[in-house]
Amino acid sequence: MRIDGKPWRSIWLEHDGRTVGVIDQTVLPWRFATRALRSLEDAAEAIRTMVVRGAPLIGATGAYGMALAMAEDPSDTSVVRAYAELLETRPTAVNLRWALDRCKSVLNDVAPADRAERAYAEAFALCEEDVAQNEAIGRHGLSLLQQLWAQRRQQGATRLNVLTHCNAGWIATVDWGTALAPLYMAHDAGIPVHVWVDETRPRNQGAALTAWELGSHGVPHTVIVDNAGGLLMQQGSVDLCLVGTDRVTAAGDVCNKIGTYLKALASHDNGVPFYVALPGPTIDWSLRDGRAIPIEERAAEEVLFVTGQAAEPLRVVAPGSAAANPAFDVTPARLVTGFVTERGLCPAREEGLRGLYPEAPKTLPEATHQAG
Amino acid sequence: MRIDGKPWRSIWLEHDGRTVGVIDQTVLPWRFATRALRSLEDAAEAIRTMVVRGAPLIGATGAYGMALAMAEDPSDTSVVRAYAELLETRPTAVNLRWALDRCKSVLNDVAPADRAERAYAEAFALCEEDVAQNEAIGRHGLSLLQQLWAQRRQQGATRLNVLTHCNAGWIATVDWGTALAPLYMAHDAGIPVHVWVDETRPRNQGAALTAWELGSHGVPHTVIVDNAGGLLMQQGSVDLCLVGTDRVTAAGDVCNKIGTYLKALASHDNGVPFYVALPGPTIDWSLRDGRAIPIEERAAEEVLFVTGQAAEPLRVVAPGSAAANPAFDVTPARLVTGFVTERGLCPAREEGLRGLYPEAPKTLPEATHQAG
Repeated sequence: MRIDGKPWRSIWLEHDGRTVGVIDQTVLPWRFATRALRSLEDAAEAIRTMVVRGAPLIGATGAYGMALAMAEDPSDTSVVRAYAELLETRPTAVNLRWALDRCKSVLNDVAPADRAERAYAEAFALCEEDVAQNEAIGRHGLSLLQQLWAQRRQQGATRLNVLTHCNAGWIATVDWGTALAPLYMAHDAGIPVHVWVDETRPRNQGAALTAWELGSHGVPHTVIVDNAGGLLMQQGSVDLCLVGTDRVTAAGDVCNKIGTYLKALASHDNGVPFYVALPGPTIDWSLRDGRAIPIEERAAEEVLFVTGQAAEPLRVVAPGSAAANPAFDVTPARLVTGFVTERGLCPAREEGLRGLYPEAPKTLPEATHQAG
Repeated sequence: MRIDGKPWRSIWLEHDGRTVGVIDQTVLPWRFATRALRSLEDAAEAIRTMVVRGAPLIGATGAYGMALAMAEDPSDTSVVRAYAELLETRPTAVNLRWALDRCKSVLNDVAPADRAERAYAEAFALCEEDVAQNEAIGRHGLSLLQQLWAQRRQQGATRLNVLTHCNAGWIATVDWGTALAPLYMAHDAGIPVHVWVDETRPRNQGAALTAWELGSHGVPHTVIVDNAGGLLMQQGSVDLCLVGTDRVTAAGDVCNKIGTYLKALASHDNGVPFYVALPGPTIDWSLRDGRAIPIEERAAEEVLFVTGQAAEPLRVVAPGSAAANPAFDVTPARLVTGFVTERGLCPAREEGLRGLYPEAPKTLPEATHQAG
C-alpha cells in the first residue's frame, strides 16, 4: 500500500540481496522508521519485541529469519537451531510454525551450499503468496460488503459501518492485510465505508496502527475504546464486525487479540454479522477445540504503562498494584457468522473450512485437547 | 474509609460550617489533594470536571451545591437557578436528580431566611443516609460472598475471584462504596477475596481509583485491560462479577460505565453470576426500558489522550483520526443475576425491585420510551 503516495510493503529484501528490511511498528504512528535485519537474532528479536507483528507478517519474517540463518551458516545444526529459535518467539500465530515448517522441509532436501539461495527464494515466494492471498481475501470480502451495502442503502443508510479490533491491515501482512483488505477495496470501489476502530489495549494497535493505515489511505474511521463496541451495536451503528485472526482451529474456533470474544458476544446478541478474515496458513488443522490453544501472557508493563506520542511510557495503574496481561482469547465458532478466505467465504464450521480446503490434513480426535 | 490509617470521607463540611471539602479525584492516585467548594459554581464545576464522580457522590455534591447556593442567595429564583445549573452537569446518574428534587422540595417549604441552614442540614442528612445505605449494601453483599466462598472452597478454590468494572468504591459514594463495600467487608471477615480490576478506558477509573482504593485497604487485586475479562471467565478465573450503576430502571435494566454490557454478556455466556450493587435512590421508577436512557457523549480527547502519572496527557491515537466517546451503556435486565441493595438482594426484575421498595411510585407505561 502507499505511504505519502509511495508504495511500500511491510517486509522486503534490500539491494544487497541479503539484508531484510521491515517497518518498525513499535514507533508508528508517531515516527516512520525502517529496520535492517542482518541475522537470525535480528529476525527473532524483531518478532519478539513486536517490531513486526500480525500473524502473516510474523510468518514472513520467520521465513526470512531462516534465510538469514542460512546465509550465516547453512549446516544441518543451523537449520535446527534457527527453526527452534524463531518458533519460540511468539506462541500464538500458527502462520509462524507453518512458514518455518515449509522452509525447514525445503532446506532439508538441499545441500548446505545451496541452502542460502534456496531459503531466500522460499521466503520471497512465501511473501508473494501472502500478497496474492490477501488480495483474494479482499476481493471475496468486497462482494460481502457490496451485498451488505446494497441492503443497507435500501434501508436508507448513508454509510456502511464496520467495526474492527486490533490491526489486521497491510502492515500485519506483507501487503493488503486480511480484515482491512476488503475495506480498502470497498472504499476504492466507492462504497461509503466507515470503520469503528477499537483502540485495542494494552498495545493500542487499533488506535495507533489501524487508525494510521486507514488515515493514510483516506478511509473514514473513528477510534473508540474497547468498551464502546457493545453500545454501538445496541444502537444499530454497526453493520458488520470484521476481524483478523492468529489461529483458527479445524472446527472454526478463532484465536485473536484479547477482547475479540467480547465483540463476538455483542454481535451475536444484537444480530450483527461477525466475520473473520484469514488466509489458509492461519488454519491449524491439528486442533479442533480452540480451548486447547495456549494463551500468550505478555509483560505486565504493557498494562501498567501506556505508550504513545512521547519518549517515555506513561504509568496508568496505581503504584503498587499488579497487572495481568493475557494477549489473546478464543471466540467459539458458534459466535462467528463466517470466514473470508482467499478461496472465498464459508461458514465457521469444519465442513465449511474443509469445503474450501479439501487438501487439508485430517484432524485427529486425540488432538482435541493438546496445544497445536 | 482509611488513607494511611486516617479516616476519610469523600465529601465533608469544613469547620467554618459553610465551605464543602472534597477529594480531588482527577489527580488520584498520583497525588492526594482536596478541594474547597465555596459556591454553587464550584460545586457544579466539581461535578462537571469529575473532581467528584460516582452516582451517589454526585448526588451528595449536588445537595451541598444547593446549600452553597442558599448561603449566597436564599431567594426563590436562586433555588430554581441552583437546581437547574446542578442538574445539567451530568445527565446519566439519577441520584443527582433525586438529591436535587429532595433539596428543592424541602427548601420550597421554608422561608428564605431559614433556607441556608435547612439546606446544609438536608445535605448532611443525605450524606449520612448514603453511608448507612452503603454499609447495608456491604452487609447484604457479604452474605452473598460468604455463600459463594463456601461453595468454591468446597470445590478446592484457594481464593474468591471477583471482577469489577470502573469504580464503585468508597470514593464514588460518601463512604464504603456500593460494589466494593461487600468486598471490603469480605476481606475484613477473612474471606480470601481477589479482585480483577478492569482498567476502564477511557478515564481509567479502575486502574487509577479502584486499584488505589483496594491497595490502600490491602485487598489483593490485579489490574487487567477491559478486553481481558471474557477470557478470564472462559478460563474459570472469575467467580462473580460485581459492579455499581448510575441508573437502574423499574424493569431492572442497568445503566453503568461503558463496557459493563460486554462483561454481562461474557458472564451470561460462561455461567458467572453478574450482580449489580445499588442504593434505592439509583432506581429510576419513571422508566422501564433502559434503551430510553440518554447516553452521555463525553469529549473525544478522553479517547485521543491518556492521563496518568505525568503532567501532560499522552496522545495514543494516530494524528488526524477522530474519536467517539460514549460514556455509558445499558445492560438488559435479562443478563443481570441480581441486585444487591441496602434492603437486601433481589432478582433483576420489576417484581424483585418492587418487593424491596413497595413504597415506590408507579411506572407509567407512557414513560417507556422517554428519557428519565
